[in-house]
Amino acid sequence: MSNDGRQSSRFSVMSAPDPALDAARSYRFDRGGELVESFNQLLRLDNVTGDVPALEKNAAELVRRFEERGAAMQAVALPGAAPVVIGRLRASGERLRTIGMYAHYDGQPVDPAAWDGDPFEPVIRDGRIYARGAADDKAPMAAVLGAIDALQAGGIDRHTELVFLFEGEEESGSPNLPAYMELVRDELAADLWLICDGPVHPTGRPQVVFGVRGYCGFELTVFGPERELHSGHFGNWVPNPAHDLAVLLASCKDEKGRVLVEGFYDSATPVSPADLDAISALPNVEDQYQADLGFGAPEPGGGSYVEQLLRPSFNIRGLHAAAVGDDARNVIPSRASASVDIRLVAGNDPAAMLDLVAAHLTAQGYLVLDRDPTADERRSLRHIARFDREIGYPAARIPVDLDEAAPIVSAAGATGRGGVVRLPTFGGSVPLHHFNEILGSPVVMLPIANYDNNQHAANENLKIDNLWYGIDLWAVLLGGEIDSGR
Amino acid sequence: MSNDGRQSSRFSVMSAPDPALDAARSYRFDRGGELVESFNQLLRLDNVTGDVPALEKNAAELVRRFEERGAAMQAVALPGAAPVVIGRLRASGERLRTIGMYAHYDGQPVDPAAWDGDPFEPVIRDGRIYARGAADDKAPMAAVLGAIDALQAGGIDRHTELVFLFEGEEESGSPNLPAYMELVRDELAADLWLICDGPVHPTGRPQVVFGVRGYCGFELTVFGPERELHSGHFGNWVPNPAHDLAVLLASCKDEKGRVLVEGFYDSATPVSPADLDAISALPNVEDQYQADLGFGAPEPGGGSYVEQLLRPSFNIRGLHAAAVGDDARNVIPSRASASVDIRLVAGNDPAAMLDLVAAHLTAQGYLVLDRDPTADERRSLRHIARFDREIGYPAARIPVDLDEAAPIVSAAGATGRGGVVRLPTFGGSVPLHHFNEILGSPVVMLPIANYDNNQHAANENLKIDNLWYGIDLWAVLLGGEIDSGR
Repeated sequence: MSNDGRQSSRFSVMSAPDPALDAARSYRFDRGGELVESFNQLLRLDNVTGDVPALEKNAAELVRRFEERGAAMQAVALPGAAPVVIGRLRASGERLRTIGMYAHYDGQPVDPAAWDGDPFEPVIRDGRIYARGAADDKAPMAAVLGAIDALQAGGIDRHTELVFLFEGEEESGSPNLPAYMELVRDELAADLWLICDGPVHPTGRPQVVFGVRGYCGFELTVFGPERELHSGHFGNWVPNPAHDLAVLLASCKDEKGRVLVEGFYDSATPVSPADLDAISALPNVEDQYQADLGFGAPEPGGGSYVEQLLRPSFNIRGLHAAAVGDDARNVIPSRASASVDIRLVAGNDPAAMLDLVAAHLTAQGYLVLDRDPTADERRSLRHIARFDREIGYPAARIPVDLDEAAPIVSAAGATGRGGVVRLPTFGGSVPLHHFNEILGSPVVMLPIANYDNNQHAANENLKIDNLWYGIDLWAVLLGGEIDSGR
Repeated sequence: MSNDGRQSSRFSVMSAPDPALDAARSYRFDRGGELVESFNQLLRLDNVTGDVPALEKNAAELVRRFEERGAAMQAVALPGAAPVVIGRLRASGERLRTIGMYAHYDGQPVDPAAWDGDPFEPVIRDGRIYARGAADDKAPMAAVLGAIDALQAGGIDRHTELVFLFEGEEESGSPNLPAYMELVRDELAADLWLICDGPVHPTGRPQVVFGVRGYCGFELTVFGPERELHSGHFGNWVPNPAHDLAVLLASCKDEKGRVLVEGFYDSATPVSPADLDAISALPNVEDQYQADLGFGAPEPGGGSYVEQLLRPSFNIRGLHAAAVGDDARNVIPSRASASVDIRLVAGNDPAAMLDLVAAHLTAQGYLVLDRDPTADERRSLRHIARFDREIGYPAARIPVDLDEAAPIVSAAGATGRGGVVRLPTFGGSVPLHHFNEILGSPVVMLPIANYDNNQHAANENLKIDNLWYGIDLWAVLLGGEIDSGR
């Protein structure tokens, strides 16, 4: 593929074999069975999120395994919460960089009846390891452990110092992560943090993700008569809030998909030429998505899928007024509501974006309240909107050519699994901003799991080949002769 | 009131006392207690709609009472249905006209716990008779029975021949009324039919209603991706059907309240100068409604409440897409629906009006289907709308100056209870069109109950003074010296 060629010219992939990669390959060739069995032992520890006693056993095992390999580790627990496991593995040779590794050891709840076996008794079938947590998210821990052992066996020094942060509450929404980060901030200094979670590219090519979208939202309610009214007696005379809502929502976005809220696009961090370059090198996913998801044409915003992700979105996630279908009543609804989420991009402040929306409502002639209107307000004003804010959190995104991230792309590229897909942003929202704000570090996402890993569902699995990819990747990252920046 | 003066000049109210009215007044003055007790006996017959055995007893009692007064009566029953009571009371003197009288003898279900007494043991309190059916709709039957007796006692001939149609299924939605009408059509010939149901004007003035709105409706669904999608991964790229729906609904009606569906106003029967005259004479209800119903300003259609009722309406009775509020999920909904009812005016054909809406959707670029789209259709077309029609039924309205209706207005005016409110149309929908289509007669609504009668609810009541109004009205209509047309 020509795209691969372009990637290769930018991030040097060794033409000569890298001793670290060689060591990893030899080690997993010779001792693949042991590596899988060691991983399986980790998977046999049940890890359903919220089950603190079970999670404590997982944390203790992680402490034990990394300590065995020379790391200084500790499990730190807030009262009633699953612990975080933190630690540091110093370079064994010259230290070229310090990299933080985040992963989570808790897993989604399981419905054993839906599984083809015990979720906590790993089964190997068709080259995959089936177990809860196999992909999400114990795989990166197994990979880095295997890589450390492989370099040790090959007599190769580690030039990357590692700092660990393993969370036990990610599948519960990370309620204590910021508090834990504040608590152990001094232990977590690094040049760059890697979020080791999620899947590689659907094509199987390595993927490095440079950002995530942030998030805010609101509930918008407009008001009609004080109670539902008979549409025969009053239809055409008493205003209909469902129609008012439709007009208001239609005013927010034009037929070209452009959000009409004034200033909506102004605060976004510009997309750099390097980002655009990375975007133009992305494999085409649009056609496949369109076929899989069953819709006729994307929003006419004029950009590719990822270009659209780099613009703040305005998504109506729900509508409600009275009832439809068999439950419909012949009424003028008393109120009509929309629920909207806004996916934020780098540069957008959540509260400020919501302020822009509120100003748009005001500009449409609405009195904007954060509560239901009083009886007097309803009687004296034709247009009243209740606007309930959900502040959410900001996006996080670094340019694809940030110096600190170059070793990551180089290491992924060195594994020989096709050109690295450099994704400027992920569509989903993850609170990576905590790494920026609390730890003061840039952050990228470095996934290793296969795309079809059944994450969160029954029969979660990791392709063994993706475990091998992880071991190779971490071996090169820790001990390889990689490009360390421009 | 100047409006009353205008009414009086158009419809002659006798300055000399009418002997029929005198007879009615004397009779109810002398024998008021008997009249109330006779009504109470009718109210003691429980009449919950759907209870056929109970309703048969009501029907038999009506047959008996009218036969006692010289009418030829019969109860006609379709299998399993409450009977209709039909009959004819010939004029006792010169016949000047034949008038049909429709009322219904069934009542709404009762929740005895919510009543201040037994719903079928009438209680008199503060000048009102409390019982199920007191207002809705046994009152007109009691009134006409009392009027017949009063004229008989006063030695006054009846010049109006009466044809009766008393229904026992109105509160169940009149499922068999058209079939019954077809069955006994030959017995029901009349110059004009009176629907004797509903309340007089809120001011207490007599009211004659010359029309009702018809009705049709539709469910409109537009489609997004085949399943709900994560709004982070796909928001801004996969089209949002809730936004499409908002745009589509906003395209249907402008900010002045004018429906933008082409041809929407074309088929309406023009409002005559006499109708406009009647409208301008209507008491102001707008201010009171606005205060009672709690909204800031009516739709900016440029007309009074009743003028707006004479235009077909486009009312969004419900909206639905995914969820709002606490149940909101961060998704792009897969579909979004609106439920709309259209109140029709005289001249509108229900199916043709729905055709106009479908054509509007097509003009907005939508493929309009009467089913969900296929997977292929979803993949190949950006805009697909499912349009499910509810045909409903047409409006019925006669001009306020129709010759056949003149005696009714004159009789109501002769009772001395203020100028007659001539309402060109009622806002609600009632299938009066059956009287036009099956019986070939014009129809007006002639209510006698008080406005605050708690119809359909607990503690339904009729003001005794409204029973007196009904007796006076029917006495004049049957035996009075009323204006019989221009």
